[in-house]
Amino acid sequence: MLEIEIKARAEDLEELREKIVKLGAEFVKKQRQVDTYFNHPGRDFAKTDEALRIRKVDDDLFLTYKGPKLDRLTKTREEFEVKVADETAKIILKRLGFREVAKVTKSRDYYRLSDFEIMLDTIEGLGYFIEVEKRADEYRPEELVEFLESLGIKKDAIERRSYLELVLEAKSREYF
Amino acid sequence: MLEIEIKARAEDLEELREKIVKLGAEFVKKQRQVDTYFNHPGRDFAKTDEALRIRKVDDDLFLTYKGPKLDRLTKTREEFEVKVADETAKIILKRLGFREVAKVTKSRDYYRLSDFEIMLDTIEGLGYFIEVEKRADEYRPEELVEFLESLGIKKDAIERRSYLELVLEAKSREYF
Repeated sequence: MLEIEIKARAEDLEELREKIVKLGAEFVKKQRQVDTYFNHPGRDFAKTDEALRIRKVDDDLFLTYKGPKLDRLTKTREEFEVKVADETAKIILKRLGFREVAKVTKSRDYYRLSDFEIMLDTIEGLGYFIEVEKRADEYRPEELVEFLESLGIKKDAIERRSYLELVLEAKSREYF
Repeated sequence: MLEIEIKARAEDLEELREKIVKLGAEFVKKQRQVDTYFNHPGRDFAKTDEALRIRKVDDDLFLTYKGPKLDRLTKTREEFEVKVADETAKIILKRLGFREVAKVTKSRDYYRLSDFEIMLDTIEGLGYFIEVEKRADEYRPEELVEFLESLGIKKDAIERRSYLELVLEAKSREYF
């Protein structure tokens, strides 16, 4: 089972919200997520295009590994996630040599529209984004691109970089 | 807070059980534990004297990191443990480059005697052991050694190697 995912920058989140609701999207939930990203002690995840994250959602914590992206347009990749009981997981990662590299703080509204999951995101320090996700056995990213286009989002707004990469870039710009 | 711990080989587990019960030890619980040990992708835990383990106790899973031992007689070391929801934790460790090195299967009876925790262990392929553990702010291992001696266990039965090390040694002997 693949998780096909696409993300784009949004100028006006409320306009997008109205559009998807008109199409029949149902509001699912609102979450505040704080993601702490780690780099590997022996390889550079920025180069291998992997990610290791501890996500805090309200009082729950999840450890997630993401493998390299499979194509150049979408964010499709292998992903494994396990719930962990408490912050001790972070200490264990640090003792194993994993280094904390960045935090991404996200306010996310989830919607469902047929077999699409739509997320309207506000990212601290970065702005607004829309993500669309679909689970499927077959890999057909065009479907997601077309859906974004139907919302008036142009192809050049598609953002393949992760929030982590964008946060790290914004950080590095601060230094210059 | 330190976890002071000592372990010794036992010839007769039932004789030991009678002795500690006579001293007032109370039976706490019986557990079957299956421990899967991993080695680090970038350093050899056998050399650094660390350990990373996933322990299965009945249907619960725990991820545990153990730091290097602090002295030559006891097993005192830093230890961090977090409950994980399911076996996905193993897949994540493998994707991060950790390699499964051995399994230790243990039947363990827990007893409590004042501030000592006493464990009577049967280890698949290794035999019988007694472990005594105490949590304390101050590091005084002599107390545990004296307690073992009071049970008739001689100093040369004290085993500082971990079950993992003993299982790996037994395995390597099979090849010669």
